[in-house]
Amino acid sequence: MLPDPLLHLIELLARLPGVGEKTAQRFALHLVAERSGTAQALGESLRQLGERVKPCERCGNIAEVDDAGHATCGICRDKRRDGALLCIVAKVQDLLAIERSGAMRGRYFVLGRLLSPLDGIGPDELPLPRLFERLSDDGVREVIVATPPSVDGEATALMLARELTTRGVAVSRIASGVPHGGDLEFADQITLGRAIEGRRTLDSR
Amino acid sequence: MLPDPLLHLIELLARLPGVGEKTAQRFALHLVAERSGTAQALGESLRQLGERVKPCERCGNIAEVDDAGHATCGICRDKRRDGALLCIVAKVQDLLAIERSGAMRGRYFVLGRLLSPLDGIGPDELPLPRLFERLSDDGVREVIVATPPSVDGEATALMLARELTTRGVAVSRIASGVPHGGDLEFADQITLGRAIEGRRTLDSR
Repeated sequence: MLPDPLLHLIELLARLPGVGEKTAQRFALHLVAERSGTAQALGESLRQLGERVKPCERCGNIAEVDDAGHATCGICRDKRRDGALLCIVAKVQDLLAIERSGAMRGRYFVLGRLLSPLDGIGPDELPLPRLFERLSDDGVREVIVATPPSVDGEATALMLARELTTRGVAVSRIASGVPHGGDLEFADQITLGRAIEGRRTLDSR
Repeated sequence: MLPDPLLHLIELLARLPGVGEKTAQRFALHLVAERSGTAQALGESLRQLGERVKPCERCGNIAEVDDAGHATCGICRDKRRDGALLCIVAKVQDLLAIERSGAMRGRYFVLGRLLSPLDGIGPDELPLPRLFERLSDDGVREVIVATPPSVDGEATALMLARELTTRGVAVSRIASGVPHGGDLEFADQITLGRAIEGRRTLDSR
């Protein structure tokens, strides 16, 4: 029913995360019908993407490619950042979220994936050699593990804690509990359990 | 925080229907991180889209561009189709849905938009001159108005009925009622009202 070039486009669009055949078809038909040149501009932008933007060679954050073809992100280049403090995250989106909080004065390391025995992802699939290299290069003394508070995130955090402690690095894990502004009534049991486990002394002096 | 080429890409992706800033960012970060060349292939496909696929010059359906730079869709080219019967739809997706039903042996005309007084879309914004031209070119005697059963769709159908009847064309409207397999208990009032209004005599002979 649809011409081949359009079917090919739909197939490619359906590779985007969370996009199925139906949504991809809607995108494609929209792009054919609209007249402000979005398809052309988007095509140009995507073709250049691989040449202009790459994961940072040091931390995995998004970085612009420099004239020599190397990619180092703004955070890794920023000399005011504390090189001795490293925050390990699962994905770039998590790094961006922590940056928005303004609570991190060190640098980052993006794992790209988490341990997941069910999907056959073991420690060998994680970029641990690159992480250890980073530790010695930067003289990292403290690591904050900010993988998500999920089953895979916790498993990854435990494995990292074991590996990093033997290398003489202080390891901590971000707190898990009831979110700011959250209602205790609607918090799930595990979150509440963690909030109580992770309670902190209030000093009223 | 993000490099300019990526921000530009996110802005373009956010123009897709139903895609906001957050989803566009997720698409963009996915495309940077994945390594099977989807970004490049998608870019190439999109750049060629305007040259290879266009709305059909006769009906507005999706069509492949021929060597002379013209676009006529497979349905308009199909000589077995009944040229005297024309089905008017709002968008290409609706045409595809009707084609899947196999119930239409005539040709189509895609309006592209519906009357919408609230959005300032009056009859002048609809491709009526092109529709009237089509009527005389093909010798259309019957028109089925298959705009959606919404406020805008009904308003458009009424306007079309008025315009087409004065031109000596028989006009009908697709039936509206309880969908096949639907439960009367959960049908809304308007749908049920229409189902009763549009009742048909059962002939038991």
